[in-house]
Amino acid sequence: MNKTRLEAFSDGVIAIIITIMVLEMKVPHGSDWQALAPLWPVLLSYVLSFVYVGIYWNNHHHLLHAVHKISGAVLWPNLHLLFWLSLMPFATGWMGENHFAPLPVAVYGGVLVMAALAWVLLQRALLCLPGANTGLAQALGRDWKGKVSPVIYLASIGLAFVHVGLSLAGYALVAALWLVPDRRIEHHLRHGE
Amino acid sequence: MNKTRLEAFSDGVIAIIITIMVLEMKVPHGSDWQALAPLWPVLLSYVLSFVYVGIYWNNHHHLLHAVHKISGAVLWPNLHLLFWLSLMPFATGWMGENHFAPLPVAVYGGVLVMAALAWVLLQRALLCLPGANTGLAQALGRDWKGKVSPVIYLASIGLAFVHVGLSLAGYALVAALWLVPDRRIEHHLRHGE
Amino acid sequence: MNKTRLEAFSDGVIAIIITIMVLEMKVPHGSDWQALAPLWPVLLSYVLSFVYVGIYWNNHHHLLHAVHKISGAVLWPNLHLLFWLSLMPFATGWMGENHFAPLPVAVYGGVLVMAALAWVLLQRALLCLPGANTGLAQALGRDWKGKVSPVIYLASIGLAFVHVGLSLAGYALVAALWLVPDRRIEHHLRHGE
Amino acid sequence: MNKTRLEAFSDGVIAIIITIMVLEMKVPHGSDWQALAPLWPVLLSYVLSFVYVGIYWNNHHHLLHAVHKISGAVLWPNLHLLFWLSLMPFATGWMGENHFAPLPVAVYGGVLVMAALAWVLLQRALLCLPGANTGLAQALGRDWKGKVSPVIYLASIGLAFVHVGLSLAGYALVAALWLVPDRRIEHHLRHGE
Repeated sequence: MNKTRLEAFSDGVIAIIITIMVLEMKVPHGSDWQALAPLWPVLLSYVLSFVYVGIYWNNHHHLLHAVHKISGAVLWPNLHLLFWLSLMPFATGWMGENHFAPLPVAVYGGVLVMAALAWVLLQRALLCLPGANTGLAQALGRDWKGKVSPVIYLASIGLAFVHVGLSLAGYALVAALWLVPDRRIEHHLRHGE
Repeated sequence: MNKTRLEAFSDGVIAIIITIMVLEMKVPHGSDWQALAPLWPVLLSYVLSFVYVGIYWNNHHHLLHAVHKISGAVLWPNLHLLFWLSLMPFATGWMGENHFAPLPVAVYGGVLVMAALAWVLLQRALLCLPGANTGLAQALGRDWKGKVSPVIYLASIGLAFVHVGLSLAGYALVAALWLVPDRRIEHHLRHGE
Repeated sequence: MNKTRLEAFSDGVIAIIITIMVLEMKVPHGSDWQALAPLWPVLLSYVLSFVYVGIYWNNHHHLLHAVHKISGAVLWPNLHLLFWLSLMPFATGWMGENHFAPLPVAVYGGVLVMAALAWVLLQRALLCLPGANTGLAQALGRDWKGKVSPVIYLASIGLAFVHVGLSLAGYALVAALWLVPDRRIEHHLRHGE
Repeated sequence: MNKTRLEAFSDGVIAIIITIMVLEMKVPHGSDWQALAPLWPVLLSYVLSFVYVGIYWNNHHHLLHAVHKISGAVLWPNLHLLFWLSLMPFATGWMGENHFAPLPVAVYGGVLVMAALAWVLLQRALLCLPGANTGLAQALGRDWKGKVSPVIYLASIGLAFVHVGLSLAGYALVAALWLVPDRRIEHHLRHGE
């Protein structure tokens, strides 16, 4: 089975998710700075989620380089990841509109945890395929970021009820970790082609 | 006529349908559990519809493997299927927002029946094309799932006015039937390539 | 210049247009037939527009078979067509929500006229390209549908202020004319490949 | 790394941005000319933004012809550009709904400046890739439009608080500059293939 359509469909869904999040930034009725001011938390939430969805797209892009053909067994792990990502606009909007109240911040972290879990499952499903790039598989398997991220997420979810700023700092930290390009994957891609 | 653009357009429409359904989950105004509670039926409807649209995408993906070239005669059967799928966000939102009231649950089933019918018509149009994979055609022709599904749908539509839980169980049952990967199609794809 | 990205971008925009129109069908607050009843004109408008956008996608698909490479000179005629199509959701929603009041019905026809004009301009830009399929060009040039459609549109716009039913019948008639597959294009595609 | 998916994802995001802007044109409740009248500034803003996003898509399309392969180093500059473009629907809607009040007009210009800056950064990242088309790189490097545009944007932002008409004329002027096809790029594409 060819992987082109899986990529195209995932690209479509991720492109829509990353774009409709901006619809949660409702156009204010006034036209002065006071009308704009309450939008800052919404904009900040949007930036954070934009970076997260961007990271997932980049990683999805990299991950699919590890396989040449797919089978029906990866279609559902892929849709499962897209499902959790599709809850990002809701979680982002709720968090921004409530100016980072504890529960929405914790729920946002819950969506991040579930997306991270879905990512691990998709990674496993792909690397079990016959013909998967075992070098890339090993590189991804030793992935310390993938192990550290859920720990920080869970800590941040707890912290949301204690100190919201620290909780958000946790989410931002994980995003920063992933923003740094993964040299091993680039290395494998450059030498494996 | 090349099938690439038909696939790309269908991927686009299905990706948008599966993603805009989440927009029916309106961000609540409060920030506590009480604000979140009324969203459960909306989330549940969303999960059910996400799985259904995911199944249609997977099957569409499989079905188009049976042909190498398409003709203008399949463009409208394909758009007809996309039309009924495009009503899923409306039906899902109406059912969720009314906490599974009888009529919305029945209308949801009506959309599922029409999509199933449109699927059969698309399948026939594709398999009539010159050069269609007759092995896959026969496998799909003996498709007991395709025959059982509308029966369960119609029973569930009737049950919606008697016992909503049973009706929803019917919809979930059909989804579960289709979630199990179709070994015959995989078999044909693996051996036919 | 390769035509793949032009097709992909157009597919994306048309897929979004055809799908977001359904968002104008707002989920009603009640859960009985009375809540559903006022949606009929909205659904009817949606069906008509879905068919129109579907026709444009099919024809776009056919038209681009006439060329192998594109130049920068067709990018804007293509965007110009997409612009008028992008007004379809607005025109459709306005017409449906006002239960086919005269002005919205006339404005809907205005959008159809402008899209038809944009279509003619795109067709000309494409067929002027070096290497365009002159057989297809000639077939498309003798296109009586393209000449009759604007006449019916303009008559329907006038009729909107006299008898809305006749006006809508005019729009439906043009859609029906185009739904019938164009044998000449199919003929050229089959023999020209 | 193959550039197909980067193009597909960018096409998807840009297609969604250009299309959801029309959702800011809310369907009015009345059905006469008086209901339509307040929509003129919204429609005008939409046309301006449609042209701008169209220009970015055209230029993105051209720019990616300069490279054959991409590396992970261009994924974030590309997402950064898409981020600023994704704020266009918000800025457009705010400007249109407030009938070109000074602050929304200035904020609109701010988004244009940031998108222009992101464009320059993406251009640099792409042209640093090994194997980039140095002829195209040089042509793009001498790009006077890219140098003049931010100056006009900044002047227009200041003018927004003095004379809104002049400010909008500035934005329209930059759009007009870019609408004129860039002969050097076409030249390079035609001779470089």
